[in-house]
Amino acid sequence: MRSLLVIVLAAGEGTRMRSTKPKVLHAVANRPMLAHVLDAALHAGASRLAVVIGPDHDAVAAQVRQAAPQAATFVQAERRGTAHAVLAARQALAEGVDDVVVMYGDTPLVRPETIAALRAPLAEGAAVAVLGFRPADPFGYGRLVTDKGELLAIREEKEASEAERQITLCNAGLMAFDGRVVLDLLDRVSDANAKKEFYLTDAVEIARALGRSAAVVEVAVEEVAGVNSRAQLAEAESILQVRLRARALEGGATLVAPETVFLSADTVIGRDVVIEPNVVFGPGVTVEDGATIRAFSHVEGAHVGAGAIVGPFARLRPGAVLGQGVHVGNFVEIKAADLAPGVKVNHLSYVGDASVGANTNVGAGTITCNYDGFRKHRTTIGANAFIGTNTLLVAPVSVGDGAYVGTGSVITENVPEDALAIGRARQVNKPGWAVRLRERLSAGLAPKK
Amino acid sequence: MRSLLVIVLAAGEGTRMRSTKPKVLHAVANRPMLAHVLDAALHAGASRLAVVIGPDHDAVAAQVRQAAPQAATFVQAERRGTAHAVLAARQALAEGVDDVVVMYGDTPLVRPETIAALRAPLAEGAAVAVLGFRPADPFGYGRLVTDKGELLAIREEKEASEAERQITLCNAGLMAFDGRVVLDLLDRVSDANAKKEFYLTDAVEIARALGRSAAVVEVAVEEVAGVNSRAQLAEAESILQVRLRARALEGGATLVAPETVFLSADTVIGRDVVIEPNVVFGPGVTVEDGATIRAFSHVEGAHVGAGAIVGPFARLRPGAVLGQGVHVGNFVEIKAADLAPGVKVNHLSYVGDASVGANTNVGAGTITCNYDGFRKHRTTIGANAFIGTNTLLVAPVSVGDGAYVGTGSVITENVPEDALAIGRARQVNKPGWAVRLRERLSAGLAPKK
Amino acid sequence: MRSLLVIVLAAGEGTRMRSTKPKVLHAVANRPMLAHVLDAALHAGASRLAVVIGPDHDAVAAQVRQAAPQAATFVQAERRGTAHAVLAARQALAEGVDDVVVMYGDTPLVRPETIAALRAPLAEGAAVAVLGFRPADPFGYGRLVTDKGELLAIREEKEASEAERQITLCNAGLMAFDGRVVLDLLDRVSDANAKKEFYLTDAVEIARALGRSAAVVEVAVEEVAGVNSRAQLAEAESILQVRLRARALEGGATLVAPETVFLSADTVIGRDVVIEPNVVFGPGVTVEDGATIRAFSHVEGAHVGAGAIVGPFARLRPGAVLGQGVHVGNFVEIKAADLAPGVKVNHLSYVGDASVGANTNVGAGTITCNYDGFRKHRTTIGANAFIGTNTLLVAPVSVGDGAYVGTGSVITENVPEDALAIGRARQVNKPGWAVRLRERLSAGLAPKK
Repeated sequence: MRSLLVIVLAAGEGTRMRSTKPKVLHAVANRPMLAHVLDAALHAGASRLAVVIGPDHDAVAAQVRQAAPQAATFVQAERRGTAHAVLAARQALAEGVDDVVVMYGDTPLVRPETIAALRAPLAEGAAVAVLGFRPADPFGYGRLVTDKGELLAIREEKEASEAERQITLCNAGLMAFDGRVVLDLLDRVSDANAKKEFYLTDAVEIARALGRSAAVVEVAVEEVAGVNSRAQLAEAESILQVRLRARALEGGATLVAPETVFLSADTVIGRDVVIEPNVVFGPGVTVEDGATIRAFSHVEGAHVGAGAIVGPFARLRPGAVLGQGVHVGNFVEIKAADLAPGVKVNHLSYVGDASVGANTNVGAGTITCNYDGFRKHRTTIGANAFIGTNTLLVAPVSVGDGAYVGTGSVITENVPEDALAIGRARQVNKPGWAVRLRERLSAGLAPKK
Repeated sequence: MRSLLVIVLAAGEGTRMRSTKPKVLHAVANRPMLAHVLDAALHAGASRLAVVIGPDHDAVAAQVRQAAPQAATFVQAERRGTAHAVLAARQALAEGVDDVVVMYGDTPLVRPETIAALRAPLAEGAAVAVLGFRPADPFGYGRLVTDKGELLAIREEKEASEAERQITLCNAGLMAFDGRVVLDLLDRVSDANAKKEFYLTDAVEIARALGRSAAVVEVAVEEVAGVNSRAQLAEAESILQVRLRARALEGGATLVAPETVFLSADTVIGRDVVIEPNVVFGPGVTVEDGATIRAFSHVEGAHVGAGAIVGPFARLRPGAVLGQGVHVGNFVEIKAADLAPGVKVNHLSYVGDASVGANTNVGAGTITCNYDGFRKHRTTIGANAFIGTNTLLVAPVSVGDGAYVGTGSVITENVPEDALAIGRARQVNKPGWAVRLRERLSAGLAPKK
Repeated sequence: MRSLLVIVLAAGEGTRMRSTKPKVLHAVANRPMLAHVLDAALHAGASRLAVVIGPDHDAVAAQVRQAAPQAATFVQAERRGTAHAVLAARQALAEGVDDVVVMYGDTPLVRPETIAALRAPLAEGAAVAVLGFRPADPFGYGRLVTDKGELLAIREEKEASEAERQITLCNAGLMAFDGRVVLDLLDRVSDANAKKEFYLTDAVEIARALGRSAAVVEVAVEEVAGVNSRAQLAEAESILQVRLRARALEGGATLVAPETVFLSADTVIGRDVVIEPNVVFGPGVTVEDGATIRAFSHVEGAHVGAGAIVGPFARLRPGAVLGQGVHVGNFVEIKAADLAPGVKVNHLSYVGDASVGANTNVGAGTITCNYDGFRKHRTTIGANAFIGTNTLLVAPVSVGDGAYVGTGSVITENVPEDALAIGRARQVNKPGWAVRLRERLSAGLAPKK
């Protein structure tokens, strides 16, 4: 197998994003664009990775360390063109490798199989391979000048002849190089042009002048969509969502209205899962077979067990782990909580930093009071317990198996197994008082104490 | 009027659905596909219905009994082609009828008027009529070979000549037969083909060989979309939603963003109703004139009275009946509850298994505690009552007309008319204690009891 | 600068809307169509405005007074054609102005720059200018007959020759007139036609017969979409939303899924704001730089400070003012409340008619009880306070700086600075009682008191 170095160019400013955040850190499907590119490179079998970043882009370097700790980072001190940017990683290029692929941190939709396709001509002797595509309007793109399948040159719009402008096959930017000659080719690139920049695209003609061949690999427009503005970021998101939804459907899930379901790059959806309209999945979610995610649910960092029912209007936050057949209903928030099989939390509750034993019923309006203004504390509830409506569990606190907590209680002390815990004031009826109270209130007076 | 037998073929396995559920039971617009087909057949005036199901498809038979109790069910023991499937209902065919229409359980978008159009040629003497359509890409579909409007044959892709492959009019599958000859035609169908199957489509050429004519009725692609995968299920849902939304708009409702409103097949929407973006209607909903359903509402099995305002973020569950001018606000769930005209439940409440009298105000955070872990109990609230914030009504319990329940009360006993009911602890202020409490908490100590 | 009178025709019945509300009062992007038109006229520099309304259209007149108090209103008593409608404003026309532009109250997408473009030919000597567009299907539209760029006539479908029907450039309705001749032109329009109506379009040929020229200004179809039905209302909404979303993206906001974000005409979105899928903005919202509006949020009449985080599942109602870095979390409603910088209201709360000081933490389930059945009262909470879970604040009431309210308290009296306030019953555990309680309940008996 041929070894592969992928160099990711990620030094762009991204002015058109109008953002204080470096462009390649903007996310699609809840993952920074740069992480998508690194991920594709790794899945394509990159043995080495180099990322070229701009000066003062510490946040980009940090993202590289997180997404691909094995990657080397190189700083391009000045912006002098794409060949100049690649040469910022000269050290990586000099280490020797069979194939070198140049990718872009703002082109997050390229898939591993596309990288493989781009490398294929190298194995057959080409020195350079270029990814081509056919945009709806080629204006402004570099045209790929070919003859009998051979790539002759990449011609920029401005320098193209009238005939060349009729070419619809355009340069997508991604290129692959024979690792043995790549440094030689790039060192020959000159900046003798209007902008005084070193263009990576010149490598095609240089290779040919040296008697080597260059190839084109054509892919669909969507594969190579680059992101330069917020609108293009939204378009990339849209394309990726279509892919992610298709994957879920093919896996045997029903998405009633796929266009209203937003998935993260890492969402895992089982078979015979039903997802109603308007569901948002943040990162880190697994939904097991036969579960139902009802409309208007927001699920993030959570595990949903087989046959569980979530929503409508449920929010699962990171660390929510729902066992088999658990029900989490409307206006319920679950965070860092383990709900054993058969647990029901059906209405208007917040269960955070907690564990709940099997088959326990958590009544409407229950709140785990996990925060005292300084620290978070845990609540532990046993199996087969019944937590009455509007119970407030002041953590740290535990409720034993089979215990029963009376409606409206504030639980500050542990409740033993099978005990009844209750803490509320007794009701008093004052006959006829509502009439007098109304008289006072309607007159703008305060109620009598 | 000519009598009509509709035979619905519903024996398919639906392997591509990757589901443990039989394909025809998957739902669009909250109704199983098979029920849509049976419904269309009944609305088209079918005097008799026969459904051909697969062996071990008890769930399908059960659905038939529910959706069309008058239908006869026949089991196709082996899969030997579409003509073989129709002949599983030989007994129904033998009873004698003017017209026989063959439909498919996985083609849920066919409308009654299309069935009527398909039958029309029979009344004019044709022995067979076939539904045709023009798909974007005809590849793989049977082509309808015609001459001067007469249907000569249905030619499968594989057996088509180069010229026949140029035909864009394709076989949609649905066919109508003269009831007097249908059995004769089908009994002549042979399995002398590559797959050793009996094809219903052969009936066209058989009829013509017997000197009878065959006709084509062309319909739009969307009418005959079949469902073989989850993606196609989502497409069928999408087409049906477009129809349902158009019906609501034509009836004089405003849908601010129709593409974000999901209706059920049986949703009834009145005139001058306003539906904001992102509303989901489950089955069994009626919304009367002038009501407003605000954004992010989920409405199922509910009746919304004239001029009522629901949402945003409201959930109406089965049995919710809202009288004229009722307000149900955000984070409120109503289930099996009757709200008389003028009732307001505006915030963070759960009202279930209850009735509330006219003009009563139900305060924020009110919960009817209807479940004791074993049974559900009812809450009855009278007219012109005021239910204070965070009232817990422990059912079975009643609150009389004009009564006033103090904020934060747990109501376990009935409240008489015009009484004030209160059940809460008195507030105590401990000056300066917050400072000491913070010191303890910030040091990681528990509060002093 | 040339003076401008805009006459808006708003007398139509709008029967196809099937509504009791006058057509021009139906809203797009939460603003009545008529207000959009008036707004465009004002932004185009109209020095005077006249609106022609139908008899008994008081609600329309009221909307005019609200959207453009300087506008004069004229009643068209009978419906006798568009020229007749314009002449209802004869008094305004007679006052003398350089340019007169006729607009329509049901064409809400026309932009100020389009009005400017339509006026341009007047400055160059034309007596009449007509807005033209090219619909997908010209059938039914008046065709613009031109010769070398000059407009010769507007020909109605019925009266068009075969050659004229091939013309794809159609009359959008909007017209501009030289103010010195407009009355003369309109007074010459006759009703000698099939419908006995006075058509404004006749002015073109009349002007030419008088030796004056007429011009066409062509615009995109979307600019001139008229609204005659609920479906067209939804289409206009959709077009306007596309514009509003593009404006937000260009300003440097991320809209993860722009097609799921609904903006109002007046929504102001800052730079580096992130808006997750499914967010609805009602009128009167400003979101400052760097704020995040999470999924399923509904924001109306609210100000969101820099870096604040709202949602998911949050509702901000009119008068909600969030300072810098405020967090408003799930199932939280804020109304007429001022939250100082750093305030957190994270779960299941209602804060209405209130002010909350800097860095105060409002616990889950907190409710300001602002309504006593007759009046609304205010709650005032100081800075650095801690409001325990499920606190009920019975307004009018205040909580001082640094105070601490115990979980589950009903606060009816003011809490001094740094005081601890508590009001709840003490918990009692009854060992083994849950077993007996379950026995009673499972037997259908009431719990022992």
